[in-house]
Amino acid sequence: MAKKGASISGFPEWLPAERVVEQGVIDTLRRVFELHGFLGIETRAVESGASLLKKGETSKEIYLLSRLQEFGQDDDTPVEEHLGLHFDLTVPLSRYVVENSGDLVFPFKRWQIQKVWRGERPQEGRYREFTQADIDIVGNGSLPDHYDVDAPLVMVEALEGLRPFGLPEATVHANNRKLSEGFYRGIGIDNVDDVLHQVDKLDKIPAIEVSQLLQSEAGCTPDQAAACLALAELQASDGDQLRQTFTSLCSQQGIDQTSDAYQMAAEGMETLAMIIDEAARIRPGSVIADLRIARGLDYYTGSVYETFLDGAESLGSVCSGGRYDNLASQGSRKYPGVGLSIGVSRLVSYLLHSAGATTSRVSAAAVLVAVWNEEERSVSDHIASSLRSRGIAADVAPTAAKLGKQIKYADKLGIPYVWFPAQEDEPDQVKNIVTGEQTAADVSVWSPADDYARQAIVVAGKGN
Amino acid sequence: MAKKGASISGFPEWLPAERVVEQGVIDTLRRVFELHGFLGIETRAVESGASLLKKGETSKEIYLLSRLQEFGQDDDTPVEEHLGLHFDLTVPLSRYVVENSGDLVFPFKRWQIQKVWRGERPQEGRYREFTQADIDIVGNGSLPDHYDVDAPLVMVEALEGLRPFGLPEATVHANNRKLSEGFYRGIGIDNVDDVLHQVDKLDKIPAIEVSQLLQSEAGCTPDQAAACLALAELQASDGDQLRQTFTSLCSQQGIDQTSDAYQMAAEGMETLAMIIDEAARIRPGSVIADLRIARGLDYYTGSVYETFLDGAESLGSVCSGGRYDNLASQGSRKYPGVGLSIGVSRLVSYLLHSAGATTSRVSAAAVLVAVWNEEERSVSDHIASSLRSRGIAADVAPTAAKLGKQIKYADKLGIPYVWFPAQEDEPDQVKNIVTGEQTAADVSVWSPADDYARQAIVVAGKGN
Repeated sequence: MAKKGASISGFPEWLPAERVVEQGVIDTLRRVFELHGFLGIETRAVESGASLLKKGETSKEIYLLSRLQEFGQDDDTPVEEHLGLHFDLTVPLSRYVVENSGDLVFPFKRWQIQKVWRGERPQEGRYREFTQADIDIVGNGSLPDHYDVDAPLVMVEALEGLRPFGLPEATVHANNRKLSEGFYRGIGIDNVDDVLHQVDKLDKIPAIEVSQLLQSEAGCTPDQAAACLALAELQASDGDQLRQTFTSLCSQQGIDQTSDAYQMAAEGMETLAMIIDEAARIRPGSVIADLRIARGLDYYTGSVYETFLDGAESLGSVCSGGRYDNLASQGSRKYPGVGLSIGVSRLVSYLLHSAGATTSRVSAAAVLVAVWNEEERSVSDHIASSLRSRGIAADVAPTAAKLGKQIKYADKLGIPYVWFPAQEDEPDQVKNIVTGEQTAADVSVWSPADDYARQAIVVAGKGN
Repeated sequence: MAKKGASISGFPEWLPAERVVEQGVIDTLRRVFELHGFLGIETRAVESGASLLKKGETSKEIYLLSRLQEFGQDDDTPVEEHLGLHFDLTVPLSRYVVENSGDLVFPFKRWQIQKVWRGERPQEGRYREFTQADIDIVGNGSLPDHYDVDAPLVMVEALEGLRPFGLPEATVHANNRKLSEGFYRGIGIDNVDDVLHQVDKLDKIPAIEVSQLLQSEAGCTPDQAAACLALAELQASDGDQLRQTFTSLCSQQGIDQTSDAYQMAAEGMETLAMIIDEAARIRPGSVIADLRIARGLDYYTGSVYETFLDGAESLGSVCSGGRYDNLASQGSRKYPGVGLSIGVSRLVSYLLHSAGATTSRVSAAAVLVAVWNEEERSVSDHIASSLRSRGIAADVAPTAAKLGKQIKYADKLGIPYVWFPAQEDEPDQVKNIVTGEQTAADVSVWSPADDYARQAIVVAGKGN
């Protein structure tokens, strides 16, 4: 049962049973990332204010730190010299890569699962602390295009690994900044970032309102606004379809195919076509071209991705990212990267509250060893110890209470077996308290039945 | 190779190879905790100032948070209403238990591995961000004494699991607050906390200086100071030895065996005797009585523990804790607990820099699949995918560079095998680049040799 409200708004905490689901999600993601040869790192929770304020619109949502000793003192240190909590794992990655470039092997493929913080005003449904799971591939000087396909496909596989948790099928919607920018320039728009910023709102507000904002906030003519929306409506599941519909829209809008703007758009289109064709070959249906995808953050320079769950589109994108050619640099040396980030906390909240995910048991223990009386506790300890030495997690009853009470303790934690130490001439006995079956057992060889051997994630109504 | 200095003092960051060691430590601790039926939780990184300031001497080392938007604004909110980063995992646990008591099963056995922060002035060798690994058992109303033995023994087993990482043998030094307090009161000392605070310095400064501080700071007479130091010198490895030496010291100091003070001391002594005798039975030599152990924090009420590594005593205690009967309460309901905490970051630093721990490979991948040319990358992708489907972690060469360069990429990441996709009539080949052995291989059945199947921690000079 979910905790209704953490005592500080925006800082979710899970009960032990819920944490089993979150831990299972994290373990699954990590396993997939490692299977693909990504290297795990952690970065410190803080960055300098200067580093945090460099990029992106979320820069307004930062928690700054101050030492208690300095509380209430006048502070004339500029904000850039303060420490702040990181609001994503991309800014830290770019710093880490530059700082450690001499010690890293490039392309540097890294996974990172950590908490991030957003210093937002408390409001319903917004997390101020949450866990992100990121993968990125960062090149030294250059980075081959095939990573633009690899990165989203690793995330699709990772999300696929969460299907047993009740997660619906996920589809990556890809676009390319060069395609959008070339198109916008082709129809006479120069303030591309302003337009992207408004187009990015299409999954939150109706198209008609976005059209109005494009005119009032981004200075578009009604025709330009209409063309932007027409572009945003294009979707394609293979490269040829993308080329056809996009080229046809460009002619319709009278974009000159010899112009620099069109060349830029065509370059983005070809990368996007390559992505969806390659993805279709490897994992059909996993990635589509969706020219509505804009991504608000301004550091993306090529591919951009958002990921939606079938039947849970209202949740918004659960895994987003893109290509950034200029995020990290050191003198004239550039470190282009491509990566995606899963919002783990929101995903876990969805699994718990909408998908009905729960765990077969709260405790990792498969066995509770009963205690007949406190004087003989050491016998029970010894049995538990013997089971653990063979990798079978075991707990020992807290007190030599009445047997019913000991069994109830196991039951409340979902521990499936209760072990009864030998009495007089009888051998040890073990009882499966789910099925009621009880048998004699030898502690040196007994193992739990497969169905009861491990904590498993259970999806309500599916019983898997 | 260790990173010489993180760019912000006190916030350590590991290179990927070092992180493999840290991750291995964390995985090992978690496995032991789960084997014993502890439940994993995480708590939010922040607590209210009021909650953080309630207990303990570390309350002075807190990072307070403020939103960037409010930077530079006059702030008349009292510090208690600010949010601060937690400085340990015990204060959050006590809040969590009270908030969720209705949803928890008691005794609540939980493990928690998380970062904590201390808002210290930057100084050499002090971490301001570090990872702690805690176990605690918390009762509802009462908590049986046997958990005072169980808790340190679980930690001994956890540290034992780190022996392959190069960790020396660990010994828990136990004491009991009631024993110390009873003794101090018996010799006419009332300000017990002040005395404990000075005695706690014995592992940092010479006894003669502690004696002076006991007189100058804690108001002891020279005789009282000498008695405190005599008590601190007592050690025992079994209950009878403890009873004998302690009782003899009490008579020497003329403490009346019928006094309340002596009764209190005797109660603490019996618990301590029980702990070392039980521990000796289960794991000989793992726990000794050491009456020097004081623990600075003021919430301990009974057993206290510190843990030292053979031959690395100068590192100080790597795992500390104790029993606290009054940390958490809700009205008249008390939640007594006992637990210990491992300073993971310091331990990892020791393993890396003093024990010579490193990893057999940086990448989790056992295989790098070579790419003959970019047009045939999909063949290599398919091979990697097939290996992963059987749980064998595989990476694919970043570019179709000269073979020597592809092999060098594998070598730098410590990936032991390079897979060569079939050419013309030849079958696939796989080469162990450590041994140089190359054989034909079938992707659907091939497995790496046991020695090369997994990332393993290697201790310099030991080769395990």
